[in-house]
Amino acid sequence: MFQSAAKTLSVSRWILLNVRHYCKKKTASTLRVSEALSATEFGEHVKVRGWVRSVRPQKANLFLHVNDGSSLQSLQVFADAQLNDSLLTFGSAVEVTGVLKKSPHHKQSVELEADKIHVVGKCNPLDFPFKIKERHGLEYIRQFPHLRCRTNAFSSLLRIRSEATAAIHSYFKENGFVHIHTPIITSNDCEGAGELFQVEPSWPKTEEQENFFSVPAFLTVSGQLHLEVMSGAFSRVYTFGPTFRAENSQSRRHLAEFYMVEAELSFTQSIEDLTQVMEDMFRSATEHVLAHCAEDVDLFHKHVTPGHRGTLDSMMKKKFPMITYSEAIDILNHSTQKFVFPTNWGCDLQTEHEKYLVKHCGNIPVFVTDYPYDLKPFYARDNQDRPRHTAAAVDLLVPGVGELCGGSLREERLDLLSARLEKVGLEDTYSWYLDLRRFGSVPHGGFGLGFERFLQCILGVDNIKDVIPFARFSHSCVL
Amino acid sequence: MFQSAAKTLSVSRWILLNVRHYCKKKTASTLRVSEALSATEFGEHVKVRGWVRSVRPQKANLFLHVNDGSSLQSLQVFADAQLNDSLLTFGSAVEVTGVLKKSPHHKQSVELEADKIHVVGKCNPLDFPFKIKERHGLEYIRQFPHLRCRTNAFSSLLRIRSEATAAIHSYFKENGFVHIHTPIITSNDCEGAGELFQVEPSWPKTEEQENFFSVPAFLTVSGQLHLEVMSGAFSRVYTFGPTFRAENSQSRRHLAEFYMVEAELSFTQSIEDLTQVMEDMFRSATEHVLAHCAEDVDLFHKHVTPGHRGTLDSMMKKKFPMITYSEAIDILNHSTQKFVFPTNWGCDLQTEHEKYLVKHCGNIPVFVTDYPYDLKPFYARDNQDRPRHTAAAVDLLVPGVGELCGGSLREERLDLLSARLEKVGLEDTYSWYLDLRRFGSVPHGGFGLGFERFLQCILGVDNIKDVIPFARFSHSCVL
Repeated sequence: MFQSAAKTLSVSRWILLNVRHYCKKKTASTLRVSEALSATEFGEHVKVRGWVRSVRPQKANLFLHVNDGSSLQSLQVFADAQLNDSLLTFGSAVEVTGVLKKSPHHKQSVELEADKIHVVGKCNPLDFPFKIKERHGLEYIRQFPHLRCRTNAFSSLLRIRSEATAAIHSYFKENGFVHIHTPIITSNDCEGAGELFQVEPSWPKTEEQENFFSVPAFLTVSGQLHLEVMSGAFSRVYTFGPTFRAENSQSRRHLAEFYMVEAELSFTQSIEDLTQVMEDMFRSATEHVLAHCAEDVDLFHKHVTPGHRGTLDSMMKKKFPMITYSEAIDILNHSTQKFVFPTNWGCDLQTEHEKYLVKHCGNIPVFVTDYPYDLKPFYARDNQDRPRHTAAAVDLLVPGVGELCGGSLREERLDLLSARLEKVGLEDTYSWYLDLRRFGSVPHGGFGLGFERFLQCILGVDNIKDVIPFARFSHSCVL
Repeated sequence: MFQSAAKTLSVSRWILLNVRHYCKKKTASTLRVSEALSATEFGEHVKVRGWVRSVRPQKANLFLHVNDGSSLQSLQVFADAQLNDSLLTFGSAVEVTGVLKKSPHHKQSVELEADKIHVVGKCNPLDFPFKIKERHGLEYIRQFPHLRCRTNAFSSLLRIRSEATAAIHSYFKENGFVHIHTPIITSNDCEGAGELFQVEPSWPKTEEQENFFSVPAFLTVSGQLHLEVMSGAFSRVYTFGPTFRAENSQSRRHLAEFYMVEAELSFTQSIEDLTQVMEDMFRSATEHVLAHCAEDVDLFHKHVTPGHRGTLDSMMKKKFPMITYSEAIDILNHSTQKFVFPTNWGCDLQTEHEKYLVKHCGNIPVFVTDYPYDLKPFYARDNQDRPRHTAAAVDLLVPGVGELCGGSLREERLDLLSARLEKVGLEDTYSWYLDLRRFGSVPHGGFGLGFERFLQCILGVDNIKDVIPFARFSHSCVL
């Protein structure tokens, strides 16, 4: 194009034009797609880089959509058909230089009129597992863990996850919590769950060698006990990190590695000190995500999980009700529904029970408090009630997911705690934990929230593997 | 006290007083120590809870300092000597009710005149390892990982760490990076370092059983390759999480579990695209910490690491210089200092070399670029130069610490990358990684920053175990 133009121009004029072009190119500022889309001043010469999400060559013109992950929406690029290139395919990477213009189309407010399109990285459409204009389901894209971020649905999920993470950190920061990095490798198992991963150096161990850490070491199942350490000096602490279960399950509900948000509050008066923070955090993080990722959330609510928006909206409108475990058992026993698992007082609530209770309460989140003492771990605070002996524990059950949060007041009374630990032969193992009660012990409590379940709850996504960047579960640790 | 007062009052008057007292108690708002300290309105009846940091009983009066972790400064409590209690000891937990007053003392602006002091949790000063008015060294308090947060120095460290974490997240968010939770358990070893932890369920494995994940699984040494996956759809991503090395070392410099900040940028032009972000992030996070944790940082600079503030200030004043590896080798070879390790071109820079280079450049952070190709992992971008064959890699060396960050442009050219992987027999293992170059590959690069080293660099702390809540290293995994 430049060459043919040059023929009709004097050499000096041609040089001048090209110098101008060069200068323009030099000063063309590089914009992210989201910045270009929100431009209010037009006519500027800019550069945009990203991946091609659609190509429409027409007789005279060429239309592209370019996305760089900064927003769900792509930037429409409009060019002379001569700028077309056989390498301009779905999935290829491009650098486009041109002028930002107000778009005449109602679907977008801005478009880029290109004077140069450079294919940075090609993408063979036959080999690329995602096809132009096809809507691939979550299950299909799950087969390509190294590529699925290149689909609209999964890139939206990742932006939502990033924003939800930031929202949770903001909530705690604004409310005076200190962020603690609780350890991943630990020599205690917190809940005595048994489903632990053990950690050892990968090099072969000789007979005489002792453990790397001198003691058996595991991947954490909860940062609670370590947060409790901090609760002896800070009235509010939290952690947000990976936790692990060696659960032999490939279900929609379980991962071997998942993220937990855990908080611990000192000087608690009652279980309501916890439920208030749980509900506040849920609402604050959800509102933040809805406000900052509206487009991305809409993609899910419109195309992936239609109908879920109504459920979410009604969750956000009403205060979360609170019932005791004993009331929950009464509700289940008065139900006409037949349950697989027993509903006697003293039995653990199963997912089927949790789902029924949520429905019964109007399909909104519900707190269940005061569980049977014998169902709860050693650290749960004894309510010292009889004949139905309960502990000051609380779960938050939510639509679709079941248990989202679990928490309790912790037994801060040295005599009660050491008696319970002695009973199970753990008073030596947890002598450090008893120390926390020996020196300036205070009433305290805390809770954990399953972060993936929180995302499922907001988005209505059924399978937990679809809300984490890289899913780990039994027989699967790809990449 | 109330009883003796009651004797001189009519019954109705006594009831009235107690109702008033009750109402007062009910409405006394609970303040955190930091809130009380920044109060500008006085006379309000408030409640403050925390741990006693000092007790000074005098003939008529009692003075306490109460701390709840919300700030380094404690709240001075002033009370009638009659409110003293033998349980009011250093380390005990208290709930104090009283009236906030402007303090007549120049050391604080606010004090709380108590009408009630309730000892919530006692603390036997003979058993408690920290003693009133004693300044315990970092090495001493390290022996009590479950209690050291109750000292001024370590609670300051934890507030600084929390704030630095928030600062780093803010920096990336403000600059359009998407936060990715890269996996902890992984089937690839990134750097081929060999110092890996392997992960297996803790239950005993029978002969026939295969691995839990079907493949050997390890704790991550870097989230880089997983960030590179995301670099095929997002132009800016980062992660901030735990990483692991099974290094048989108990040195001041090494931990088995530590935190890394890693970022990956697509469409890079040169190594300067990385160094700019590295320097920006360093400055932004440091400024944020200095602004938001001034008191806590001062504690370190005044009492723990005197003299370090000057070093930090000069780091912040000057732009970080950049030298090539070849220039670094020349500098070392022209030095009069005798080094233990060789300084031939092609040798890796050792800590002694790094420290010399930092000193040589004015005791400020310095970038070293373009390392020998053969020293760098397979993903580092080939500079295709000769005879001295280098890769586009960069380290940031800082005073006291040595290497703080390491990064590189990544080899985005399919032919070069697959040739290199083929040479070491890894082209099948990394076929997914090659896919990233098959489909819309773009020039990209990234870096990792050792978060504990960053804290050491700001605070001047010599031992890495003193800047992490729970230190894990060979033969040590306490709690």
